[in-house]
Amino acid sequence: MSTSVVLGIDIGGTYTKYGIVDRSGNTIFEGQIETGVHPTPETLISALANIINENIKSKNNQLDLKGIGVGAPNGNYYTGNIELAPNLPWKGVIQFVGMMKEKFNLPVVMTNDANAAAQGEMVFGHAREMKDFLMITLGTGLGSGLVVNGNLIYGHDGFAGELGHVTIEEDGRQCGCGNRGCLETYVSASGIKRTLFELLATETEPSRFWDVSFNSLEAKDITIAANENDPIAIKAFQKTGFLLGKSLADTVAHISPKEIFLFGGLAKAGKWIFNPTKASMEKHLLPIFKDKINIRPSALQDKNIAVLGAAALIWNELED
Amino acid sequence: MSTSVVLGIDIGGTYTKYGIVDRSGNTIFEGQIETGVHPTPETLISALANIINENIKSKNNQLDLKGIGVGAPNGNYYTGNIELAPNLPWKGVIQFVGMMKEKFNLPVVMTNDANAAAQGEMVFGHAREMKDFLMITLGTGLGSGLVVNGNLIYGHDGFAGELGHVTIEEDGRQCGCGNRGCLETYVSASGIKRTLFELLATETEPSRFWDVSFNSLEAKDITIAANENDPIAIKAFQKTGFLLGKSLADTVAHISPKEIFLFGGLAKAGKWIFNPTKASMEKHLLPIFKDKINIRPSALQDKNIAVLGAAALIWNELED
Repeated sequence: MSTSVVLGIDIGGTYTKYGIVDRSGNTIFEGQIETGVHPTPETLISALANIINENIKSKNNQLDLKGIGVGAPNGNYYTGNIELAPNLPWKGVIQFVGMMKEKFNLPVVMTNDANAAAQGEMVFGHAREMKDFLMITLGTGLGSGLVVNGNLIYGHDGFAGELGHVTIEEDGRQCGCGNRGCLETYVSASGIKRTLFELLATETEPSRFWDVSFNSLEAKDITIAANENDPIAIKAFQKTGFLLGKSLADTVAHISPKEIFLFGGLAKAGKWIFNPTKASMEKHLLPIFKDKINIRPSALQDKNIAVLGAAALIWNELED
Repeated sequence: MSTSVVLGIDIGGTYTKYGIVDRSGNTIFEGQIETGVHPTPETLISALANIINENIKSKNNQLDLKGIGVGAPNGNYYTGNIELAPNLPWKGVIQFVGMMKEKFNLPVVMTNDANAAAQGEMVFGHAREMKDFLMITLGTGLGSGLVVNGNLIYGHDGFAGELGHVTIEEDGRQCGCGNRGCLETYVSASGIKRTLFELLATETEPSRFWDVSFNSLEAKDITIAANENDPIAIKAFQKTGFLLGKSLADTVAHISPKEIFLFGGLAKAGKWIFNPTKASMEKHLLPIFKDKINIRPSALQDKNIAVLGAAALIWNELED
C-alpha cells in the first residue's frame, strides 16, 4: 500500500528547500538546492522535478504524491504569482504556480513564507483546533500570518498580513520598502542590531560590543551577551520587546487572537525577548483583552516551518 | 400576502432606536424610546415589545416578523451578552439576547454598533458584493468593523475590531478605557476638539475659537469654521486626518481591504477630513498597497446605520 504525501517547497533568496511530508507532518525526505544558480524559474523547477521524481522512484513507488504547496517571498495565493520579490534572482511577475502545474501535473497552491508558517502551526503545531491566532516570523525581517475563524487573511489582493510594515515610529528608521519607521526596522535580526548601535550612541556602560563593527555583529551574539548580563544587550532586548509588544497590542485590537506564536532567530532568545514583549503588550492592551492572550514560541521552532507550512497549505486545500 | 420583515434595534446610552426593515433595506416604520428611564433591561424589552406588536397589528398583519438584530455597545456576537458597557444604565453582564428571545420567541442576534454598521454597508450599502472592507464610525469615539472574505472579524472572544484603541501616541492623551494615546482620543468628535485646544496652545493665528470654552465647542463648529478658512480649524482637520490616515495604513497592512468607509459626524466634514486622511494613508502605505485602496463616505451616511445594520445582521443570519 502506498502512502499519500505532498511536496512542500520554501523558496528563499539563497536556498530553495523542499520536503516530502505525510498527513501527520512527518518528513519522508528533504533537501535544498541553490536558488541563485538558476537563471530562470523554469530551470529551478526542472531541477526540483528531477530530484523529486528520482527520490520517489527510489522508494519503489510507495509514495503517492497528491499535490504541492509553495511558500515564497511575495507569493500570492490568489494569482499564483510571485510578484516583485526583491530578494529573488528573477525579476517582475513570475507565474510560478502555472509553471509548477505544467511540470508536475498536480494541484499546486502558493502563499508567502509567513502565511505558510501560520498554516504549518495550524495543521502540525500548537494551533491545531485554534480558530484565531497570530504567527510572527522573526528573521532578517518580520513576517506575519493572521488567522481568523480558521482561515488565513489574504485580503482583497492576496497581500494582507504585512505587519512588518506598520509604522511604529513616525520618520523613524529607513526600511527596505522605501518608507521609514516600519516595525521590522526595529523588531527583527537586523532591527535589534540597529537598536544595539543606537544604544552605543546613547549609553556609556561596559559592553562587549564597544569593539564590534556593525557588519561583524550577529543578532545571536546579543543573546549570548545578555546571558552574560551585558547591560547594552539587555537594554537592546528591552527596547525590541517593548516595541513588539506595543505593536502586538494594536494587532490584538484588530483581530483578537487567542494566542500569538513567535518563530525564528530572535524568538530563540527566550525570556530576553518574551518577557518585555508580554509586559509591553499587556500595558498597551484595551482592558477587555488584558490577561487573556498568550505569547509563546512556535511548536515548529526547530523544524523547517516554511516547508512544513507549504505542505500544510496543500493538505488543507486537498481536503477542502 | 404578507411581507417578511425583521426588527433592527440600536441601543444607545440616551436612546434605543428601532426599525422594521424589509429584505431590500426599506424601513416600514421606525422610532425611538429613552434608554435611561428603564431601571432594568427587562422593562426596556417589555416597552419595545408593546410598541412593535401594536405597530405590526395596526398594519393588519401584513408584516411577517422573522427575526431581530441588535447593535449595542460591547454587544458580543458569541455570548449574546452586553458586557460592561460604560454608557448604559445597567451594570455588569446582561444576557440581552436570551431576554429578547424569551420575550419575542424569534431568532435574535447581536453585535456591537460598529460591527452592525459594517454589516449594514455590506447588505444595503456600497459594500454589496465586496468581500474585504473596513468600516470606521466616527462619533464621540471611534468604532470599527473589519470584514474579511465576506465575514465580520469577531476574534476568539467576540471583541475584535477595536481600532479606536490602537496606540497612536505613546503616553499620549488620556482615554476613557484607562490607557493613554488611543486613536479615538485624537480621531473622533471629542478628539478633534482636543486637537483644536492643543492648537490654541501652540498657534497664534486669528480664529473664531479664541473665545470659546471646551464645553461649549461642538465638533461641527470646526467644519463651519474650516469652510470660512479659519486657520486653526483647518490645522485641526489636517492633524486629525494625518493620524487617521497613518492608522488606516497600519490596518491595511493587517487586512488589505478593497475600500474603507467612513460614517458619522466627522465624515460629514467632507474634503476637510477625507483629503488629509487619504494623503497620510498613501504616505504610510507599503508600496504594494499604494494607489489601490479607496476611502469614501458610507452609503448610509444620512440613515440610521446601526438600526439598518442590526437588521442586515439578522437577515444574513436567517439566510445562512
